Amino acid sequence: MADSVSPTPAGDPLVIAGVSYTSRLLVGTGKYKDLEETRRASDASGAQIVTVAVRRTNIGQNPNEPNLLDVLPPSRYTLLPNTAGCYTAEDAVRTCRLARELLDGHKLVKLEVLGDAKTLYPDVPATLEAARTLVKDGFDVMVYTSDDPIICKRLEEIGCVAVMPLAAPIGSGLGIQNRYNILSIVENATVPIIVDAGVGTASDAAIAMELGCDGVLMNTAIAEARDPVLMASAMRHGIIAGREAFRAGRMPMRRYASASSPITGVIGGGA
Amino acid sequence: MADSVSPTPAGDPLVIAGVSYTSRLLVGTGKYKDLEETRRASDASGAQIVTVAVRRTNIGQNPNEPNLLDVLPPSRYTLLPNTAGCYTAEDAVRTCRLARELLDGHKLVKLEVLGDAKTLYPDVPATLEAARTLVKDGFDVMVYTSDDPIICKRLEEIGCVAVMPLAAPIGSGLGIQNRYNILSIVENATVPIIVDAGVGTASDAAIAMELGCDGVLMNTAIAEARDPVLMASAMRHGIIAGREAFRAGRMPMRRYASASSPITGVIGGGA
Amino acid sequence: MADSVSPTPAGDPLVIAGVSYTSRLLVGTGKYKDLEETRRASDASGAQIVTVAVRRTNIGQNPNEPNLLDVLPPSRYTLLPNTAGCYTAEDAVRTCRLARELLDGHKLVKLEVLGDAKTLYPDVPATLEAARTLVKDGFDVMVYTSDDPIICKRLEEIGCVAVMPLAAPIGSGLGIQNRYNILSIVENATVPIIVDAGVGTASDAAIAMELGCDGVLMNTAIAEARDPVLMASAMRHGIIAGREAFRAGRMPMRRYASASSPITGVIGGGA
Amino acid sequence: MADSVSPTPAGDPLVIAGVSYTSRLLVGTGKYKDLEETRRASDASGAQIVTVAVRRTNIGQNPNEPNLLDVLPPSRYTLLPNTAGCYTAEDAVRTCRLARELLDGHKLVKLEVLGDAKTLYPDVPATLEAARTLVKDGFDVMVYTSDDPIICKRLEEIGCVAVMPLAAPIGSGLGIQNRYNILSIVENATVPIIVDAGVGTASDAAIAMELGCDGVLMNTAIAEARDPVLMASAMRHGIIAGREAFRAGRMPMRRYASASSPITGVIGGGA
Repeated sequence: MADSVSPTPAGDPLVIAGVSYTSRLLVGTGKYKDLEETRRASDASGAQIVTVAVRRTNIGQNPNEPNLLDVLPPSRYTLLPNTAGCYTAEDAVRTCRLARELLDGHKLVKLEVLGDAKTLYPDVPATLEAARTLVKDGFDVMVYTSDDPIICKRLEEIGCVAVMPLAAPIGSGLGIQNRYNILSIVENATVPIIVDAGVGTASDAAIAMELGCDGVLMNTAIAEARDPVLMASAMRHGIIAGREAFRAGRMPMRRYASASSPITGVIGGGA
Repeated sequence: MADSVSPTPAGDPLVIAGVSYTSRLLVGTGKYKDLEETRRASDASGAQIVTVAVRRTNIGQNPNEPNLLDVLPPSRYTLLPNTAGCYTAEDAVRTCRLARELLDGHKLVKLEVLGDAKTLYPDVPATLEAARTLVKDGFDVMVYTSDDPIICKRLEEIGCVAVMPLAAPIGSGLGIQNRYNILSIVENATVPIIVDAGVGTASDAAIAMELGCDGVLMNTAIAEARDPVLMASAMRHGIIAGREAFRAGRMPMRRYASASSPITGVIGGGA
Repeated sequence: MADSVSPTPAGDPLVIAGVSYTSRLLVGTGKYKDLEETRRASDASGAQIVTVAVRRTNIGQNPNEPNLLDVLPPSRYTLLPNTAGCYTAEDAVRTCRLARELLDGHKLVKLEVLGDAKTLYPDVPATLEAARTLVKDGFDVMVYTSDDPIICKRLEEIGCVAVMPLAAPIGSGLGIQNRYNILSIVENATVPIIVDAGVGTASDAAIAMELGCDGVLMNTAIAEARDPVLMASAMRHGIIAGREAFRAGRMPMRRYASASSPITGVIGGGA
Repeated sequence: MADSVSPTPAGDPLVIAGVSYTSRLLVGTGKYKDLEETRRASDASGAQIVTVAVRRTNIGQNPNEPNLLDVLPPSRYTLLPNTAGCYTAEDAVRTCRLARELLDGHKLVKLEVLGDAKTLYPDVPATLEAARTLVKDGFDVMVYTSDDPIICKRLEEIGCVAVMPLAAPIGSGLGIQNRYNILSIVENATVPIIVDAGVGTASDAAIAMELGCDGVLMNTAIAEARDPVLMASAMRHGIIAGREAFRAGRMPMRRYASASSPITGVIGGGA
């Protein structure tokens, strides 16, 4: 085996819109010092899907400026144009169409419709509306949303190819705030559930995967680490660790080794 | 690089009693279905140090029975005889001496003196006493103890080569209960701090490493997973993930991306 | 002072739809052994607002059966008819109108539109729709919803007199799962924020109040305690404790007494 | 009932060294602005036992200076001289004897032997030694220690009249870090277990009581609140809330109301 990291054996691919991926880590491309750092961190992460804020990143709009696709070539990476910065369904739909044009008919997009500039929480009703429009228009929609299990199911029913609940506010690094919600979403889903936003460190990524998520998308946690390239590698391992632990089936928690039965929830706590 | 898992580059070895290790995961050898499963899980974990309960495991005491060293040969693994099952300083010291004899002068031991059979919590005063005796007797003592920062420092001052605070009770799988204690122990130490006991899944191992621990020792979390060999691999990646995240320097937590300063502790919680 | 529990001095009333209350604990009336237990627990809780599931409780629909209003007389309690069991906006609106009729023009209602019978999570789009209809129809609407800060603000803008985010699923007793969301909702609100659902014990209620919530509504945590009347009293004190702690301004968290500055979020955890 | 706060009915007193108390909140007397604030906060707390740092507080050593006993008269409060600031067993023993002399043969003392000036963690071996000496010398010893269940039991066996494990470092306000340890200590004890140190707000006090502790001692959380007198009242209610909730028997945690069985520990978290 040339690369023994390779954790997603033939039998455990992530399948999105019919395409199989061996990596379950999706990364953003913003907030890096320069395109070279973007390239090196993306490489170290092992990611195969990279997301790009169409409104902030040159992927061809400005022919005379540095183009992200020069360092993250579509031959190697699946591009995932996103609608970061859109606050209405209309804006988000328009941005997706622009990306499709720039990328020669590329159908895979990440939809986000933000509800406010402070928390960057999604606007759920507008997200539902934009998702309906985009799905009808032939897009393969991966959709950022809150961790509301009912809404996540609704987005799946609309026809989104992946549902991406937040772990915590975008750029917060707080880690998964509501594990029971994520678990409910996962248990109830037939499309991939990918935690999007809020992961701060490698153990957060592992926890998301241990809950049964199909993948994690992150940007700030890598780009704002002191050493982004090393953190990208940490996240790569964290995703593998969590996925393998999920598949391996963890031991039950108990108060003592000698306890005859697992603990039950009498003690409160984070989760 | 033949094996791209290899996470502990030349510059980041774990050094115990003057010996360098590239793996920071130490594993126990008990509770497996059979010796073959022990062998496969140990192999998948990437561990270089394996601990052995001298009172429960045949490492030569019974020449006609299966010997653990046949599947975990000292040529490949550093054996760490431990005193599991000892409830007095005398018993623990005697057990270490027996191990040294059986293993031809082997000096490295893991000391544990238990305080009670239910919780398997250490008896701290007896542990201090046994540690003093063993250090004087020329052993290289790695010592299991509670997560009390003062006691951990005391054990270092006695001359132990590594201090091993528990994360939670042995065999509980509860994960790290008191992160602030572990952090205080790490910050205050000049010998390796290795979390011993209480880890339940891969993210727990990653968290220990993110707190700055030098390694993690575990047994039940691997042996009692549904698929021990896959969990061993998960733990291997979890340790690497946590170590790299620690070295990479995580982003600060903040409530929002737009927040100008990191959060401060107004909201209570696990830690 | 006749009753020294009285925690909400003249200067700190809870005001809902123009009416002042001294108690910040709202209680449900279901799940009790009998009406006498309902009466005793309601009394011990000190609550002034009691919520009633119109579809399950006799408040006059069946003139020949025991009537809840006999033990919880409107002269003493403000009745809060709720739409528990409604899964569509239409059903919820119809139920509110029925309650208004039965209660001679009573305008105060608690709206809940459930999204699924398993999790009892709200259906947020249907909730928004029903809220709009009810507000236009002259109701004073207190509204159960998810802990999504954007949706909570939207419900306030629609004209709801109080917004009631869940702490955890109805009847779960898990306590507040996402403290940051509750905090964001509170900081952003100009109507009372009342945690509804998920509280399991007295400290959960205190935590909700310490986050700045204006009140807590609960039912199962009291009715399913081993001693519901004593738990009702515990909750009464928990609400007072949390409110007073919020108003008193807690000390900052720090790692040590000698630390010169409060902790910042480097250690992950529940919150 | 004159005072309906009175939460500890005739049947539920706290008994320490044969004396019954109706309040389960014990308070410190340091860190206040002035003696008048000390008096008002102590009064609002409802505490009947107040602890005094003999080495820092004038309880008669300096006849011409303000005396704490003038505002907290022994006729109303049980004084609990403590050995704060002592780093050796000898110092602590000497300080207790000084207190006994100053207070005319007063036998009740709170022993603390600190291990280091930064964390204020106890020196457990020195604490055990001082406890033995003081018990032999006829003192009624309440003893501050770490949350190690084995050590707590040992201190009880030595003859201490109450064992006082820390929740978190003195003056940290971090709340209970290791709920399982506190629970194990409580389950295993036949003397009162009183959480000492680390409580930051009212819900922390409630949680300690819900775990089954017999009382809580605190100082900084009250004295360093923005409004110490109001926080003292908050703590009074928090203690009552937690005690009543403990006695009332909380509902089990479950993921949903419809779940047929309580949750078991698959999701990790603070506790």
